[in-house]
Amino acid sequence: MSNSETLQLAKTLLERPSITPADEGCQQVLGDRLKSLGFELESMIFEDTTNLWARLGQGKPVLCFAGHTDVVPPGDPSDWSFPPFQPTEHEGYLYGRGAADMKGSLAAMIVAVERYLKQVDEPPFDIAFLITSDEEGPFINGTKRVMETLESRNEKITWCIVGEPSSTEQLGDVVKNGRRGSLSGSLSVIGVQGHVAYPHLAENPVHSAANALAELTQTRWDDGNEFFPPTTFQVSNIHAGTGAGNVIPGRLDIEFNFRFSTESTSTQLQQRVETILDAHNLNYQLNWKLNGPAFLTAQGLLINKVQCAIKRVCGYPTKLSTAGGTSDGRFIAPTGAELIELGPVNATIHKVDECVKITDLDTLTDVYQAILEEMSV
Amino acid sequence: MSNSETLQLAKTLLERPSITPADEGCQQVLGDRLKSLGFELESMIFEDTTNLWARLGQGKPVLCFAGHTDVVPPGDPSDWSFPPFQPTEHEGYLYGRGAADMKGSLAAMIVAVERYLKQVDEPPFDIAFLITSDEEGPFINGTKRVMETLESRNEKITWCIVGEPSSTEQLGDVVKNGRRGSLSGSLSVIGVQGHVAYPHLAENPVHSAANALAELTQTRWDDGNEFFPPTTFQVSNIHAGTGAGNVIPGRLDIEFNFRFSTESTSTQLQQRVETILDAHNLNYQLNWKLNGPAFLTAQGLLINKVQCAIKRVCGYPTKLSTAGGTSDGRFIAPTGAELIELGPVNATIHKVDECVKITDLDTLTDVYQAILEEMSV
Repeated sequence: MSNSETLQLAKTLLERPSITPADEGCQQVLGDRLKSLGFELESMIFEDTTNLWARLGQGKPVLCFAGHTDVVPPGDPSDWSFPPFQPTEHEGYLYGRGAADMKGSLAAMIVAVERYLKQVDEPPFDIAFLITSDEEGPFINGTKRVMETLESRNEKITWCIVGEPSSTEQLGDVVKNGRRGSLSGSLSVIGVQGHVAYPHLAENPVHSAANALAELTQTRWDDGNEFFPPTTFQVSNIHAGTGAGNVIPGRLDIEFNFRFSTESTSTQLQQRVETILDAHNLNYQLNWKLNGPAFLTAQGLLINKVQCAIKRVCGYPTKLSTAGGTSDGRFIAPTGAELIELGPVNATIHKVDECVKITDLDTLTDVYQAILEEMSV
Repeated sequence: MSNSETLQLAKTLLERPSITPADEGCQQVLGDRLKSLGFELESMIFEDTTNLWARLGQGKPVLCFAGHTDVVPPGDPSDWSFPPFQPTEHEGYLYGRGAADMKGSLAAMIVAVERYLKQVDEPPFDIAFLITSDEEGPFINGTKRVMETLESRNEKITWCIVGEPSSTEQLGDVVKNGRRGSLSGSLSVIGVQGHVAYPHLAENPVHSAANALAELTQTRWDDGNEFFPPTTFQVSNIHAGTGAGNVIPGRLDIEFNFRFSTESTSTQLQQRVETILDAHNLNYQLNWKLNGPAFLTAQGLLINKVQCAIKRVCGYPTKLSTAGGTSDGRFIAPTGAELIELGPVNATIHKVDECVKITDLDTLTDVYQAILEEMSV
């Protein structure tokens, strides 16, 4: 088995049951390897979350590898073919919770950097690692707070490679260069309760809101762009009524969610919703929650180098995508970093029998190393 | 105290805790009085409900007094100034559950008929009483089934006086000559559940139904007429969603109710709703429940006589109205009877300290007697 260094490091990490937000010593293992390479380590512990910021060099543009040591819970271990925290090689695959999301990526990043540093005297950029143990949880004390800390001292990431499992069929076939934003609204339309036989003494909020609701569901918020589908609006919950058939409800509650492209900002969407509600003269309360902004890394230096590296190592072209849910990239990209997500095939993530093809760990190591090399020329 | 016969009979009825559908022997008391007058009695017991059909005469047009011996529950008796089933005279009022709705009316009807029969040799019409113990409950085994029985043997009611408390400020100021219909619908719009991040894989029934809902709430169903306000449509309950903010609901449930005038029929309303739903290409299930048809007794013999009788006894004109909820009139009027509702002031019905003005009991007796007299000339 070639490149077994990555496999060995991945297994060391997979043995640790680092269910979010636990790190279980994973960052110590990674930090020890980075320290040997000359990295300066900075542990940032916020509440229940362990974070590691490691940097090699001082003052040059920063190429940062980002990832997380926490994993989602395995569920009932007896549903697994192999114990989830006992990494097992079977028919060319490495099984274990976190194998694909994303301890395999972390191992590949470390080994790639080790090899790269062996072949260059001095890299033309600083290299950094941003590792958190709170990506699968509430993501309050993880990457978000590390970035706030870096921002507060004006420490910038120039290029960032997040190890999220972006690949779909084969390693490197898809690279994520952005994500849609997610914005939630909690709307209450206030009416006046009453008896259905005397509607003139009541004000039915379902009736008052009907036109506004129709308009919200039919508005075309934007047309998307080359990288994003158009912004979507969806009502997830709607409730009104006492249960009785003869009572006009006094209040209508609606929860909705936007998944938005970079053609809209959360502020614009909020204003447009409120304009629609106001135009229908509704008496309402509305609470917003921005789960994550939309971000996009357009074609440029980083993407060009990544595409070249994948082509060189894998032999096939890679596809850019912004599909899927949210990732920690949303906390890094808004600071101005060019950011992509590149990692293993995501078919088994968050499922029982999570696994990664063992040769893919080696290929991923080669790709990360090739990116470092491409960025050096 | 003049006319104390009505007061005494009312008290006899009020002592009996005939909470719906119990009769507690009230119909026995009434039946005994009617039997003495030569009425032929027919007890019709359906399930938990006691009904009395009493008729004097055979073959002439039928003038029927209709009413109910059951009452709504008193709630906590300690909230009452006097025990609810211990009729109490206080400052000119008779207190007790059912005093106004409608044991007072029943007593007045009996005494009026007794007096009327003393002064005529043979009335020019048959006289009947239709008494039920299921007007305040589910109204399944009461007047509805009595009317079905009468219809099945082709026994008709020509004119009907229901003793419901129709008066608002003073006795006889308002007579009801019809009621709006009530039609309920239970609608489920079927979609396809999914994740809010992938709306193209789901079909949100809240979105599909939004335009149809707006149209339903804004349709003018009819313009009403001289006796009825326009038909109204009200959504009483609307629900969709799993509670989770990231799930597109698979189904939207809506309950609604029509209160409709005689300008629309329930069949028309059902067709119009279904036409709207179909026009929006909805996949839906819809269950209808007709709680009662709209009915109206137009100006004619009965109303003329009733207005004359009230004018003669009370000295002021009466107003015709179709306002309010449903009454057992809905089961009688559709068979072709001219029907009005005339009874005590309704200010305290269904409340604690239900009461009736004692002199109103006597006036009501006089009015009922005067109607019999007017109908005889």
